[in-house]
Amino acid sequence: MAIPTETLFLDPDSERTLQQQIQGLVADSILSGRFQAGEKMPSTRAFAKHLKVARITVSLAYNELVANGYLVSRDRSGYFVSDTAPRLPQFRPPPPDPEDAVDWDSVIANPFAPPSELVRPSDWRNYHFPFIYGQSDPRLFDHQNWRLCALNALGRKDFESLTTDYYERDDPVLIEYLRRQLLPRRGISARPEEVLLTMGAQNALWFATQLLLSPEKTAVMENPGYAGLRDLLRQVGCRTVFAEVDQDGLPPEAIPHGADVVCTTASHHCPTSVTMPIARRRELLRRAREENFIIIEDDYEFELPSLRAPTPALKAQDRTGCVIYVGSFSKTLFPGLRMGYLVAPEPFIRQARSLRAYIMRHPPGHVQRTMAYFLSLGHFDAQLTRMGDAFSRRRAVMEKAIEENGLELATPGLSGGSSFWLRAPAGVSTTALALRLREDSVLIEPGQAFFNPEEPNQNFYRLAYSSIASNRIPQGIELIARATEELARA
Amino acid sequence: MAIPTETLFLDPDSERTLQQQIQGLVADSILSGRFQAGEKMPSTRAFAKHLKVARITVSLAYNELVANGYLVSRDRSGYFVSDTAPRLPQFRPPPPDPEDAVDWDSVIANPFAPPSELVRPSDWRNYHFPFIYGQSDPRLFDHQNWRLCALNALGRKDFESLTTDYYERDDPVLIEYLRRQLLPRRGISARPEEVLLTMGAQNALWFATQLLLSPEKTAVMENPGYAGLRDLLRQVGCRTVFAEVDQDGLPPEAIPHGADVVCTTASHHCPTSVTMPIARRRELLRRAREENFIIIEDDYEFELPSLRAPTPALKAQDRTGCVIYVGSFSKTLFPGLRMGYLVAPEPFIRQARSLRAYIMRHPPGHVQRTMAYFLSLGHFDAQLTRMGDAFSRRRAVMEKAIEENGLELATPGLSGGSSFWLRAPAGVSTTALALRLREDSVLIEPGQAFFNPEEPNQNFYRLAYSSIASNRIPQGIELIARATEELARA
Repeated sequence: MAIPTETLFLDPDSERTLQQQIQGLVADSILSGRFQAGEKMPSTRAFAKHLKVARITVSLAYNELVANGYLVSRDRSGYFVSDTAPRLPQFRPPPPDPEDAVDWDSVIANPFAPPSELVRPSDWRNYHFPFIYGQSDPRLFDHQNWRLCALNALGRKDFESLTTDYYERDDPVLIEYLRRQLLPRRGISARPEEVLLTMGAQNALWFATQLLLSPEKTAVMENPGYAGLRDLLRQVGCRTVFAEVDQDGLPPEAIPHGADVVCTTASHHCPTSVTMPIARRRELLRRAREENFIIIEDDYEFELPSLRAPTPALKAQDRTGCVIYVGSFSKTLFPGLRMGYLVAPEPFIRQARSLRAYIMRHPPGHVQRTMAYFLSLGHFDAQLTRMGDAFSRRRAVMEKAIEENGLELATPGLSGGSSFWLRAPAGVSTTALALRLREDSVLIEPGQAFFNPEEPNQNFYRLAYSSIASNRIPQGIELIARATEELARA
Repeated sequence: MAIPTETLFLDPDSERTLQQQIQGLVADSILSGRFQAGEKMPSTRAFAKHLKVARITVSLAYNELVANGYLVSRDRSGYFVSDTAPRLPQFRPPPPDPEDAVDWDSVIANPFAPPSELVRPSDWRNYHFPFIYGQSDPRLFDHQNWRLCALNALGRKDFESLTTDYYERDDPVLIEYLRRQLLPRRGISARPEEVLLTMGAQNALWFATQLLLSPEKTAVMENPGYAGLRDLLRQVGCRTVFAEVDQDGLPPEAIPHGADVVCTTASHHCPTSVTMPIARRRELLRRAREENFIIIEDDYEFELPSLRAPTPALKAQDRTGCVIYVGSFSKTLFPGLRMGYLVAPEPFIRQARSLRAYIMRHPPGHVQRTMAYFLSLGHFDAQLTRMGDAFSRRRAVMEKAIEENGLELATPGLSGGSSFWLRAPAGVSTTALALRLREDSVLIEPGQAFFNPEEPNQNFYRLAYSSIASNRIPQGIELIARATEELARA
């Protein structure tokens, strides 16, 4: 029986190429049993005419389907569904029985609250003025070289080293680059046994909190601070002390005696961007040594340009191994990559490696190798330079617009990285402001999520310039100023 | 100052292309400050001569370095280190202070034992007769199409959807394929809200045990069974009952009253390959319903050819939602990919999704999209057919060799998937046998790791044929038989 072309349609919204769509269409129909072994396929001419595509597109799709064993080509008579084409076994599922359904509330032993609410809608790219944080800007990403590196990493030569299940090891090429190129920029020297790759910074923080904390222990976190960390501390059930941050970051005197773990973003505080001066760092390390607490340093956004000379990481001054260092590529490459790393003394890394093996074995091999190529061929540094230039320009435009429109920087002169931290007029809730601004296609990040939930503070907000083009900034800031005034008057 | 070519060397052991090596060499030297801004690079001719490579290779590397901002080209005078080349800030790390080092044993609140020992050496590819399990065979993998799919997934069109940090969602294309094509083969129908992507099966099992178990709960696992699961149960600290498996898999009557979670590999038992008959499945589900326990089904190796018609998953018969289904692509694509999935009722998946967001957000986006392409274009099914053919041939050769050499199959006639489960003569320790066989370049998997550690059993071993070519099998089996006799006599 010949297969009529009429049963086959292309999806106008598909993201695939026409050839891919045709291949998928035919493969699906064979797998699902709609096309049976021995049946004659429409001729390439008829099929092309029906689908309104070039005949060569259908031919190429058919060739691929022949290569994959779905079709056979018989001289002069055309293409047929192969007798040995892949097939799906079909089973009829029993009807569901909702009466008897499991009561999941009683069954789940360790319920997990959803992580802190996102401050951006998932369709943020459709907004005109997305002052949102931490997403990559496709205009700045070196697409072509990333693809080339991925292609290299997927080459036959690398295949064996990448596809193997290597519980213990990380990609030695990537570790070497980190140790020799990236960490030295932060003043850190580390042996390979002191570095562990993670699925982004969140994963690194999870390992650290999981290993170091328990309900009997006390953790200190910065207030305001990173909401993702607060989630982790709440989940582990430890006592959490919120230490108020000032113009110099976390004050050592705000750390109570008896602390077990102190979490800090010393070089570039989240979300205010202030930097901890060297005297404070020394005092922090001295107390850690004397009182035997561990410091988790989230060295966040260090690669991005700063107004001042870069400062080394806190870890660089750590002579006793009391600092656990967390780094990430989410901001400089893209967050969907999920790549970060831990640097810490070997006994800690050994434990974190075991924990990683339990929960997921290791991050995917070819993602590691792609990064290793991208970094070691110099593309990463080139990308940082490019991002730095663009971000500096955007920051200058933004600073001017902020001043002209009378908005208030909470930490003037200190902003670096990719965002500003602003204070709204007294009485204006930035949560309400953010919601109101969506009507104008403006996205801002209300500050509430960064504060101790027991002392809510809706007076601040963050404006990032990592995802917004320079020429949109002035109008966006103007809209924010107008909406702020509106709310202040109300 | 001109840079002398003499300071630059290629690494003969490097896995990179010559052009990549040259690029890396120059970028490294600039980043580390060895080459300074304004310095003249060696001419392409001189450099090529020194390195003994084609001049075009050096030219291409230089072009790339110009594009990345490391070099500038001046007409007629050659290439120079750019004034704006990326540079590394340099810090001098303080000397270490080992006297004062942190005592990690006292600091780590939740120590993690290393996961169960690996039964293969990391250089297993250098062994002549690798009867090891679970590694991918590069001879069977559809390399070229995987690379093409990766290239597509990294295309500009897909970039936005893949690079974004999307905590909640999985790649909708991949989820759709799983629901419409893969799960129906196991008789499972599921809504998108009932599926969650994980970092391999281990990660899926971790989510399930983490959510469902606690020190107060009781888990049942098969004996012998999967060592990775036993590790997870030990870590969560629940009471673990080991249920002896017979020729029909896990006997429902071996499940004690009061069990909270029962873990099973019903369709293809690990490591014996036996299949649970339908009557037992019904009884297992009936008891789960009546006694309110949850079943974790690790539907392991279902895609691989079996001697008999495929059976649907246990999950296919689940009418109350008491089965949590775990699947993986590690065996059919490659383990380094780290991709698996959970299928379970929505309340459970919601919790698992929250937990996933805490520990790592989500699996990398472009790995998901690459898989989505590979699967939906029909390459995956074609690959299964190819693997099925090769594995069937290898199994036939192996079965014959096993019989001819007088080795004993522990589950005769039942083996499928990618391995056989064998019994050694009484008194022969397969742990010792495995060690002895390494001298002959033979790798086997001693069975000890699969058994309840409190009742050690060294009488069994697993021989897999997923990584060994057909023509090596007979000699390998002969060597095993000879070493077995040797140990039996000793």
